[in-house]
Amino acid sequence: MSSAHPRLSLNQATIKHASLDQALKVTAEAGIGSIGLWREPVAEVGLEAACAALRSSGLRFSSLCRGGFLTTDDDEEFAASVEDNRRAIEETAALAEAGADGSAPVLVLVAGGIPAGGTIEAARQRFFDGLSQLIPAAAGAGVTLAIEPLHPMYASDRAVISTLAQALDLAEETASQHVGVVVDSFHIWWDPAVYAQIRRAGAAGRIATYQVCDWRTPLEEDVLLSRHLPGDGVIDLSAMTRAVEDTGYRGDIEVEIFHAAIWDQDPAVTAARTAEAFSRSVAPHLRG
Amino acid sequence: MSSAHPRLSLNQATIKHASLDQALKVTAEAGIGSIGLWREPVAEVGLEAACAALRSSGLRFSSLCRGGFLTTDDDEEFAASVEDNRRAIEETAALAEAGADGSAPVLVLVAGGIPAGGTIEAARQRFFDGLSQLIPAAAGAGVTLAIEPLHPMYASDRAVISTLAQALDLAEETASQHVGVVVDSFHIWWDPAVYAQIRRAGAAGRIATYQVCDWRTPLEEDVLLSRHLPGDGVIDLSAMTRAVEDTGYRGDIEVEIFHAAIWDQDPAVTAARTAEAFSRSVAPHLRG
Repeated sequence: MSSAHPRLSLNQATIKHASLDQALKVTAEAGIGSIGLWREPVAEVGLEAACAALRSSGLRFSSLCRGGFLTTDDDEEFAASVEDNRRAIEETAALAEAGADGSAPVLVLVAGGIPAGGTIEAARQRFFDGLSQLIPAAAGAGVTLAIEPLHPMYASDRAVISTLAQALDLAEETASQHVGVVVDSFHIWWDPAVYAQIRRAGAAGRIATYQVCDWRTPLEEDVLLSRHLPGDGVIDLSAMTRAVEDTGYRGDIEVEIFHAAIWDQDPAVTAARTAEAFSRSVAPHLRG
Repeated sequence: MSSAHPRLSLNQATIKHASLDQALKVTAEAGIGSIGLWREPVAEVGLEAACAALRSSGLRFSSLCRGGFLTTDDDEEFAASVEDNRRAIEETAALAEAGADGSAPVLVLVAGGIPAGGTIEAARQRFFDGLSQLIPAAAGAGVTLAIEPLHPMYASDRAVISTLAQALDLAEETASQHVGVVVDSFHIWWDPAVYAQIRRAGAAGRIATYQVCDWRTPLEEDVLLSRHLPGDGVIDLSAMTRAVEDTGYRGDIEVEIFHAAIWDQDPAVTAARTAEAFSRSVAPHLRG
């Protein structure tokens, strides 16, 4: 077994075509101590079996992707989505319980896009309404709802929340400590306010997770699949990682990459390369 | 001759394949009173001939695209770029003088991207240094240097200035009234701070020009060519136009579209469709 940096977590999306069992196996075999899971592969085997597999892997659990998508203007769809998010909260709590010590009960929330004929303002309000309805369940389960601002190129069809400042404004408006934010380098590196907002997030105790990958142009034809391994692009991961560390954040750091060519690799190769890239481009900037 | 809204200006990029003479002709024949020009087609005929053609067209001149690209970390290239921008300032002054009453001596500046191996922070500083060096020439020629924040999806390869707030911060740092900003719906519509920053820009007298086009997903394969006619996408042009109008801005409003399918149309058709789209989606929200 090779050895990866102890704070690295492999987000399962990086090895998208692996089943849950395969994902746990290649992660552990790459010497990575933690994994971020996705709901679909968990659902494939069922939550109970997933928890058992996670427990026997000895890995930490760093987050569940993903909840959210709460921007519909159809009342019935909205209620169904809130209900689905309640199930995701329960799944998150169970998986964090099954993971090794240091697991984090974090549910990543992607807001959702603008419904046909709607406005971005209305969609943002709808997301906030949904978020508010989920807080009692999150508090009851001890789960952190982590709002993930996505890059503004996804603002119309995927996430009407685009900046850390905006996510933190929402989190503060809820006045709940069960609402946090995802700091994902890919989505926010371009933001002139990024370091100030990372400090703000840290001071408020709202950094739920830190995710790293890199940005490179030209973008891929499918802009959703344009993420690269840390160090393979233009993001100043030294400055960003130090900014996150300076807040006192000492949790897992996920590498989450959506990229067709990376998905086509053997998952074991991807896990090993992820560990190498992390050691090279992120680990040197960590304080602990 | 049909008639377009009196505040519409056709940005020449929308009919990219037309020569300067053709562009002036189709603009006037569509009943549009103003045109935004690009340096390349002006250079093709020479500045003097371009000014003569503009004068005899009877059209207003609303802006020249584009200067900027000041982020190189090579000193020689940087000096050459500053020099080239000085020429663009002179061209802007001459064209504004040749245009009909109400012409605007506005030079649009696109910052430039991150040089190979560089950081976004250093590139931003370099742009600011270049901007500062251009102010005496702009002041001497009576030209407004209009910083255009581009959508964050262009932050690495085209413009390290991504938000109106950031552009206004730079403008204020120069303490010069010859520095303004471009409010372009396509680039900033997603920004949760957009209306507050439009108010700020207006209060500071720094709205140099207002450009409209629309955003729609999926993005085109070349993300540079993903702009649509006003009304054909998700941008709330009612709210944005009212925000700009509420500042007291009463200048020309340019429609600037980069889109291969639109470029392939007969320019006269594009001019007519632009006028129609403007009348439908922008004009109803104007105060004057």
